Amino acid sequence: MITAEIIAVGTELLMGQIVNTNAQFLAERLTGLGISVLHQTVVGDNPQRLRSAAELALNRCDAVIFTGGLGPTDDDLTKETVAELFGAELALHQPSVEKMKEYTRGGWDRSMPRNNLKQAYLPKEGDGLIIPNGNGTAPGCIFEKDGKTAILLPGPPSEMKPMFLETVEPYLREKSGAAMCSRVLRIFGIGESAAALRIDDLIKGQTNPTIAPYAKEGEVTFRITAMAETAEEAEKLLGPTVERMYKEFGDHIYAEGDDATMAGTVVELLREKNKTLATAESCTGGMIGSAITDIPGASQVYGFGFITYANEAKEQILGVRRETLAAHGAVSPETAAEMAAGTRRVSGADIAVAVTGIAGPGGGTAEKPVGLVYVGVASEKGVRTVKLNLSGDRKRVRLRTVLSALDEVRRELV
Amino acid sequence: MITAEIIAVGTELLMGQIVNTNAQFLAERLTGLGISVLHQTVVGDNPQRLRSAAELALNRCDAVIFTGGLGPTDDDLTKETVAELFGAELALHQPSVEKMKEYTRGGWDRSMPRNNLKQAYLPKEGDGLIIPNGNGTAPGCIFEKDGKTAILLPGPPSEMKPMFLETVEPYLREKSGAAMCSRVLRIFGIGESAAALRIDDLIKGQTNPTIAPYAKEGEVTFRITAMAETAEEAEKLLGPTVERMYKEFGDHIYAEGDDATMAGTVVELLREKNKTLATAESCTGGMIGSAITDIPGASQVYGFGFITYANEAKEQILGVRRETLAAHGAVSPETAAEMAAGTRRVSGADIAVAVTGIAGPGGGTAEKPVGLVYVGVASEKGVRTVKLNLSGDRKRVRLRTVLSALDEVRRELV
Repeated sequence: MITAEIIAVGTELLMGQIVNTNAQFLAERLTGLGISVLHQTVVGDNPQRLRSAAELALNRCDAVIFTGGLGPTDDDLTKETVAELFGAELALHQPSVEKMKEYTRGGWDRSMPRNNLKQAYLPKEGDGLIIPNGNGTAPGCIFEKDGKTAILLPGPPSEMKPMFLETVEPYLREKSGAAMCSRVLRIFGIGESAAALRIDDLIKGQTNPTIAPYAKEGEVTFRITAMAETAEEAEKLLGPTVERMYKEFGDHIYAEGDDATMAGTVVELLREKNKTLATAESCTGGMIGSAITDIPGASQVYGFGFITYANEAKEQILGVRRETLAAHGAVSPETAAEMAAGTRRVSGADIAVAVTGIAGPGGGTAEKPVGLVYVGVASEKGVRTVKLNLSGDRKRVRLRTVLSALDEVRRELV
Repeated sequence: MITAEIIAVGTELLMGQIVNTNAQFLAERLTGLGISVLHQTVVGDNPQRLRSAAELALNRCDAVIFTGGLGPTDDDLTKETVAELFGAELALHQPSVEKMKEYTRGGWDRSMPRNNLKQAYLPKEGDGLIIPNGNGTAPGCIFEKDGKTAILLPGPPSEMKPMFLETVEPYLREKSGAAMCSRVLRIFGIGESAAALRIDDLIKGQTNPTIAPYAKEGEVTFRITAMAETAEEAEKLLGPTVERMYKEFGDHIYAEGDDATMAGTVVELLREKNKTLATAESCTGGMIGSAITDIPGASQVYGFGFITYANEAKEQILGVRRETLAAHGAVSPETAAEMAAGTRRVSGADIAVAVTGIAGPGGGTAEKPVGLVYVGVASEKGVRTVKLNLSGDRKRVRLRTVLSALDEVRRELV
């Protein structure tokens, strides 16, 4: 089994300015590839300590994945340090220079070239591989020698993650030999403990496939992974476990896959059924619309959204009646219902979803506490409302509201 | 200066099931105490590797803070391992046993005692200090020997954080002596390379204060930190550097502080000037509204938002003229201007901001490529538009558009 260490380079991590989410992402993906992560390390932009950490890691593990320190400034030294350890030479990589020119466009002829050029110094052919960066100016690279591998990736997650998935993962998969097959089941509407209890016997008895539960912001994910000599055999091993999961969780399973999202599922369903959606948001203030339009091609199914944060907006834009607001308040099933109906009417969409609630930290009362949210759904079938009692802070209440609202749309469609 | 290392113990971290937020919290607090964090490490519940990591850390740093591995199960070994390294003896600590009994109440007489008792084995008097745990059953402890300190805390953040703040921080504050002062300047509208070049001399010559640049999603942050014998002296040392920064970056500096955000700055400015804002979003689909309503109390200044993803929505809701859309297209300065003016008219807000652009991946042409975005701003001063040429993927284009739109509102207000 291949062993690995993750080294993050960056003073901003050492000083606690940012959380090392890269390490979690890489650890999860490496584990999923059947690679055993034995250490994670963070060092600052200090040449001696970076070098010691790299040497130690290469001594005790087969593969070392570095993040950070590939930037344009003088204290970005990961590439130079690791190249030296591998006896590899760096040279100006013309295609990367060209890409960088294109990427930085207007700025290029002014102040950027001197610094940015440093990022285009990459392993000479034969001394290492280059990992293209589709979302930034710093390419990554891979060095190999005497059975040891160093993989260098930039620090920003938006650049690092696609580079890992597109280039590094296929590279490692080939290296590891054994075939592996994973399925990721995404569940909404059941808590982690409750979900785990339902398949307690599977979790306790797991060997191959393994079952890794993971809970985040109201959804639970189970990654089921089997190893075998061929991909077909591995896939076959997954069968009974996956079948049992579907029996246990039914329509709480809203999607499969690492990149699947509730919004993606809803957009896909709308597309399939040839339906359009409109939204009205009070407490989420645009997050539902934002989640939907995060999906490329959402414009086919989504054209109208309303952020009616003020009562006047609910009245004026959606036609919620003043009497309703006066009698029941903005956070009530009556208001949610009128918001949804009004949104459907004004937009002409097939389905409208509306949310109104108390996200906190202020604004809660004994009768209507922070976390009380109503979701309204209007369609040709009529209007219905759902009451949520959410726990957690403002951020969490808002996130959970978005997922619940989208889940109601999904249930309207299936 | 005291140097420190943070060691997190836990297989769930190594496998990427959870993010190591403890390290960020501790790093930030330690830095704030003037303690220099030089390494962060994660190891699993493996006795040999845990022992090696602890030895290495105690060799290279003055203080080592451990999180995790204090639990009741057999693979929780941090305390036993570190005690051995310090030649300290563990003994059953009766007050902790009593507290534990009280804490676990009903469960005590059933399955918990045998395992939980393990957590009450703590350093004998004279061999170490005990850190009480107000939110769980595992107390922490401190070992000291030959100028080296080991601080052991449990893994769950809800237990670890209060223990650190209540017991460890006062303990370390007394130890460290030196005072530290930091200021964080947040800059928008200048790239990292360009920003760093402008203060190249400061960065190259830095000793005290130090300057740490950090770039994320279109903004650049500089943390300037000075150390001295007193907080006043440290603050005084910051003065000239901060002054130079303000001279260099002027109104590109939109806020100061670790938790400051562009949306928070805009909401605060609106509140100060007693103005209201409304939004109309095409390519960002609700992200601007979402960023604004992320700020508690945003309802004082924000009541109306429109997600006009479809052309019909731009026409029907905001009164953009069909001829404008036909002649110039949805992504044009003309449409952005009419969206902003319409939003201001319909909402009655003092300021309206509107965005329309091509976020990609599809939809780009030679004339109007992916990343082309127009921002419209309407206020009593009239309507103006700004053209953006953004690079990167859909997510990045959308995020940069949000920041740029909010920055235009900020500039309207200052």
